Formats: sequence, C-alpha cells, structure tokens
Amino acid sequence: MQCHKKPVMPQGFSCSSKNCGLKEQGADLSLFYSKVPASAAAVFTRNQFPGAPVILGRELIQRGQLQAIVVNSKISNVGTGQQGIDNAAKTGQAAAKEMKIAPEDVIMSSTGVIGVQLPVELLEAGIQGMGQELQEDPLVAAEGIMTTDTYPKALSLSVGEATLTIVGKGSGMIEPNMATMLVYIFTDAKIAAPLLDQMLRTAVNQSFNMLSVDTDTSTSDSCVMMANGLAGEVDTEEFQKALDFACIEMTKMLARDGEGAGKLLVTKVKEAKTDQEARFIAKALVNSPLIKTMAYGADPNIGRILMAVGKCFDCTVVPEKLVCHINGTLVYQNSNRTNFDETAVRELLSGETVEIEVRLQVGTGQGTAYGCDLTEGYIKENASYYSS
Amino acid sequence: MQCHKKPVMPQGFSCSSKNCGLKEQGADLSLFYSKVPASAAAVFTRNQFPGAPVILGRELIQRGQLQAIVVNSKISNVGTGQQGIDNAAKTGQAAAKEMKIAPEDVIMSSTGVIGVQLPVELLEAGIQGMGQELQEDPLVAAEGIMTTDTYPKALSLSVGEATLTIVGKGSGMIEPNMATMLVYIFTDAKIAAPLLDQMLRTAVNQSFNMLSVDTDTSTSDSCVMMANGLAGEVDTEEFQKALDFACIEMTKMLARDGEGAGKLLVTKVKEAKTDQEARFIAKALVNSPLIKTMAYGADPNIGRILMAVGKCFDCTVVPEKLVCHINGTLVYQNSNRTNFDETAVRELLSGETVEIEVRLQVGTGQGTAYGCDLTEGYIKENASYYSS
Repeated sequence: MQCHKKPVMPQGFSCSSKNCGLKEQGADLSLFYSKVPASAAAVFTRNQFPGAPVILGRELIQRGQLQAIVVNSKISNVGTGQQGIDNAAKTGQAAAKEMKIAPEDVIMSSTGVIGVQLPVELLEAGIQGMGQELQEDPLVAAEGIMTTDTYPKALSLSVGEATLTIVGKGSGMIEPNMATMLVYIFTDAKIAAPLLDQMLRTAVNQSFNMLSVDTDTSTSDSCVMMANGLAGEVDTEEFQKALDFACIEMTKMLARDGEGAGKLLVTKVKEAKTDQEARFIAKALVNSPLIKTMAYGADPNIGRILMAVGKCFDCTVVPEKLVCHINGTLVYQNSNRTNFDETAVRELLSGETVEIEVRLQVGTGQGTAYGCDLTEGYIKENASYYSS
Repeated sequence: MQCHKKPVMPQGFSCSSKNCGLKEQGADLSLFYSKVPASAAAVFTRNQFPGAPVILGRELIQRGQLQAIVVNSKISNVGTGQQGIDNAAKTGQAAAKEMKIAPEDVIMSSTGVIGVQLPVELLEAGIQGMGQELQEDPLVAAEGIMTTDTYPKALSLSVGEATLTIVGKGSGMIEPNMATMLVYIFTDAKIAAPLLDQMLRTAVNQSFNMLSVDTDTSTSDSCVMMANGLAGEVDTEEFQKALDFACIEMTKMLARDGEGAGKLLVTKVKEAKTDQEARFIAKALVNSPLIKTMAYGADPNIGRILMAVGKCFDCTVVPEKLVCHINGTLVYQNSNRTNFDETAVRELLSGETVEIEVRLQVGTGQGTAYGCDLTEGYIKENASYYSS
C-alpha cells in the first residue's frame, strides 16, 4: 500500500484556514467541510481534564453524523469551566452559520495553552468568509491546526474508487489513550456510522494509541472521521487495511516530528504472553528516557533494553529467553550480549529510524509502539514555553 | 529531627574504599564492616533482569545477619549469566577472607554498565589490605560507590544513645520499586532482624519508593540495613520516626543530584480517594517531562499540572474539586486558574526546590513523591554515555 505523492481532500470535502488573531502570525483557524452530511465517528482523550470541545464533542458524535469540523490552535480551551463550554459551542454555531448547516453537524477542536479563556469573538469574526475560500489541498487546513509542529501533516491513499485522507498535528504532550492528538480522517467511501466507529477504533488501537512522544496525555486529544459516501461502497476488509496503514503512517509522521525529535523510534515486542503485555512492554521501551537518549546518542546500550523490559513487573519475562535486535542486528540472547559489530550498529543507530525488537519467547502476543528520541530540543522547547 | 553536621559510622562500624582498577581514577571499590555480626534486612529492585549481586543478595539476606558489605562501581554485573553469579560470589568470598569472617555474612552490590562481565581478579586483588584501612567517615566509602553522582552522600542522626547512618548513591535509571538505588543503612541500635525488616520496608515505602529521577527502574537497586546492637535497645517508635526521616532526607539528596538536575521537585497529593491513588498521582506529576521542564523553566504552567493529574485514568478525580498550589501559592481552584501574582510565583519556582501540591477533595488519601527537573544536562549525560 502506498500514500499518494500529494495529499488531496476526497470528493465532496474541502477545507480552508486563516489567521483570526490568536497567533501573531500564521494560520490559527481551520475549517473542514463536506458538501453533504457524512457518517461520522470519533475517539477522544481519556484525560480526566478534557477540554471544552472534547466535552461537547462526546455528545455531538452520538448522532453519528457531521458536516464540518472547526479547529483553532494557540489556545486549547481546557480548564476554563462553563465559560469555556459556552465559547466552544459559540465557535461551532458561527461555523454552522457561515456554512448554512445545522449546528449539531459541526464538531470543534482547540489546541494550545491550557487554562486560558478563548477570545471567542475573534473566532466568530474570523469564520466569516471562510466558506468562500474552500480548497482541496488538506495541507492548507493542516497549517491552521499546528502548535509546536515543524511542518503541516496530511496524507492520502486510494481504496478502490474511494480516497482516504488524514490531516494531523502532534508534537508534545503526546501519549494518546483511546484517542489521539488532533487527527481528522476524511473519505468519500460509503460507510454507515456504527461500522465507521468500529473501524476507527480498530485502526486507532494499533496506531495513535501506540504513539508516545513524552508519556504525557493531552487534555484535547481528538480523532474524528467523516465518510460522505460520494464514491459509493468499498470492500470493508480492504478499507480497514488502508485505514490501519494510513493511521500508522500518520503515527510515524507525528512521532518523527515530536518536540525536539531527530529520529523515529519503533519498538517491536514479539512472542509475549499476550498482546496486552507486548503492547505494555513496547510502550515501556518507547517511553524510557534512557532508551530515547540512547537513540539520540546512537549507542547500542543493551543494558537499557534489558532494564526497560525488566521494569514491566507484571508481565511474564524469562530473562534467559530474551532475544534483542537493534535495526535488524542480533545484540542479545542466551543471557549474554552477542559479539556484534559495534561500529556497524552505531551506524544503523545514526539513521533516521531506530528500531528495537524484543522477542520474549513466552507466547504469541505482539505489539509495536512509535516514539522519538529525546534531545536537548525537547528540553529547550518545554523549559522556555511560557504558559501566559 | 536533625541530621548531624558531619556523618559518622555508628559504634563498631567502619568502612574503606580504593581504586582497584575498574575506573581510570577515583575509588571504585568500597567495604563496610561491623566488628560484630549484625541483624540485617534488605530490599531489592523489582526489575525482572536483576544483577548477579541482587540474585545472590536475596538468598543471603534470608538469615537476617550480615557483617560486611562489598560494593563496586563502574560495572553492574547485570545480564552476565552464570559467570556473573560466580563472579559476585567470588567477590564476597574475597571480602570474607580479608576480614576473616563467614562468607555468608558478606553481601555484595555492583553498579555501572550493564551486560559486561566483572573483571573479578581486579576485585579479588583490590580487596586485599582494605581491612587495614578501615575508617569511621562514611563519605570515604560513599566515594567508592558513585557512578554519575556529582558528590558522595551520607548522613547521620542520633536516636537516644544510638546512631543511624545512611550512605547512598543515585543519579540516573532511578525509579526504585520495593527497593532503591544503592543505599546502606547502619545503626548500633539493637533491633532483631524480623523487626528490622519491617521497619526498613515501612521507611522505604515512603522514601526511596517515592523517588523518581527518570521513570527507569535499575536492575541493581539495593537497600541494605545492618544493626549491630552495640548501643543497646532503643524506643521502637522513636527509631522508626528517625529512620523514616533519614530515608526521606537521603531521598531528597538523591533526587537533587539526579542526572543533570538543578532542582528538587516535590509533589504532594492530598485528599485523594486512597493513599494508593495519592501515591500514583504524585508519581505521575513527578515523572511528567512537561512538569519537569516546567520546573526547570520556572514557569507556573497550570495546564501541565491538570494534564498530569488527569492522565491518571483509574484514579478518582473530580475536575471541579481540584485545588493546586505551587510553592505555597494557590494557583487553581473552582475550575479556573486563580489570579495569582505570576512574577512572584516565577521567583518561587526559580529556587532550589519546586513543590507542587494537589488537593483532590475526594477522600483522605495522601502521598508525596520526590524527583528533579529535566534539563539539557540529563540528555547530554545519557546521549553521550557509551556502553562499552
């Protein structure tokens, strides 16, 4: 399966973005629109301090139908009480008015600083006229949802006659759980809402839910999917495969552009007792600061791999059975470090992707997690980030 | 309660250290000795890849008696199979021979690189003569157990007629669990082994087990306690209080000297549903990279506090009830950021200790965790650390 060279919004979908005055420069407001109402599904953060748009979004998505998504960056509208809820609702109403659609068919997202009220009048004014500027390039809207991302992210691929397009943003405060950062998935395939929900959850489970930039779960994580049906029905199995693939590709894009990141870190765990244990260990590996700095420093530190597997106290681990590979090279088995060529492994580790594979030989469970290295850039970005 | 200005080994205890050739310079081998056999207790790492000394130590401590501890730094003797076990045993035997005591009264520790065999002949040769160099200053032996620590750590205090002294090392790969990094506790109080074990576990539970430098649990964590009885019996309750206090003080010393750390980070959680939930949330706060970089950057980022509490999915959290203080200043309540003086709070955050207090108002559970800020120094140290 392959992504298109240039992403495009599927048939009937369009988007626009603009600066409405939240950021000093650059787009801070994005609109996604389908010319017909679409089946819809969504998953949200499990964080217990969800943002106002997440609180409203959970209700809105119950109907399984959407026609537009409005997103602002810079301010996340989290920790803002009832006023925050009112402001999120007003934003959706303004978008509905602009597009002449039902307010309940518009879902909202906000990302940025927590604990600051949204200057909703800027959004209400900004939305006016956005309906006239709709385009087919998803990167236009991807720009408007960025915070500390270094570039806009979107990808498209084909499934039969249909197109599947994902627009996303990530960067920091990212270990989604039952949801993801901000990701919007559009397709012109015809899929009813209940099935769409099921397919989305399947895909998210092995992609965005296995992503961690820094172990911190955002209060605004949202992944919304719309299917407007304009390209007709598709083979369900084929579509699920495409959706899984596309979500994993976007997951890798988000990991690679994690705050300060220079490398994609992929941790694969095989032959664990259960899939659940494999996923837990893969996450422990991808989240370990010592593994992350090892990826950054390109040092094949086997000890840190053993340590990170070993600290999964409740998983079945038999030290004598552990087999480890770094970027395809066998580095540990039979309770001992192998006699691998260190210079060669250091070179592999210096590439753009570091892959650690751990085989436990205690069952058939497997799981893969995605993350990034930990560099001075992360510290710099987050120590100098001022909350007001 | 107060620590002595200058730590000293309790009556009957002594120690020495030397360079035996593992490190290029500086002490790498330490010996602790009691002139009479002492009651003993210990807790060890829960990591599933324990070092050879930990595997042997778990057996040795069963008898509840020790007379000496031998520790080397630079190589941890972890992931080294049967040869590693044999080498650890030989190290203990060499120490027993030098001190003319029973080999089963000597416990071993090793700290340093994982996955490398211990050049045991260097240790066997090095131990010879150490019995002649015994001293009463615990800092002498504290030197020999250091890895990336920036200074040797020891403290003493009095309990009635008895003295209580702790020697420790920490720095990185530190989130102990049911144990701690390398910590040795000596007292001349008379306490039988079963009670000693119970007292040690009580103290460790609220001190070293609530410490996290980087969420990574070492494979060598050991905390060994010896009580030789030379000062006679003590009031149990008073001794427990002193032991708790001393362990928390050592915990703070270890946190403050975490790799690259500039500040001690203390996170207090009150009025949680249970102590267990309070401890879990306190750990989530102290481990969050975004809280740690906020401490480093001295920015009162309330959003990161909400996020870290909120990502404790299985704890009882009612957003409307949350009350947060930073270094004593009220910063969040009633679902909103308070109108606090930001300049003043930034100044408080610029000090040597950052204290975040979260009151949940859903019960009576409480817990405090200890950690440090996350700085470029941690990245530098761990990205440039070469495993061979």
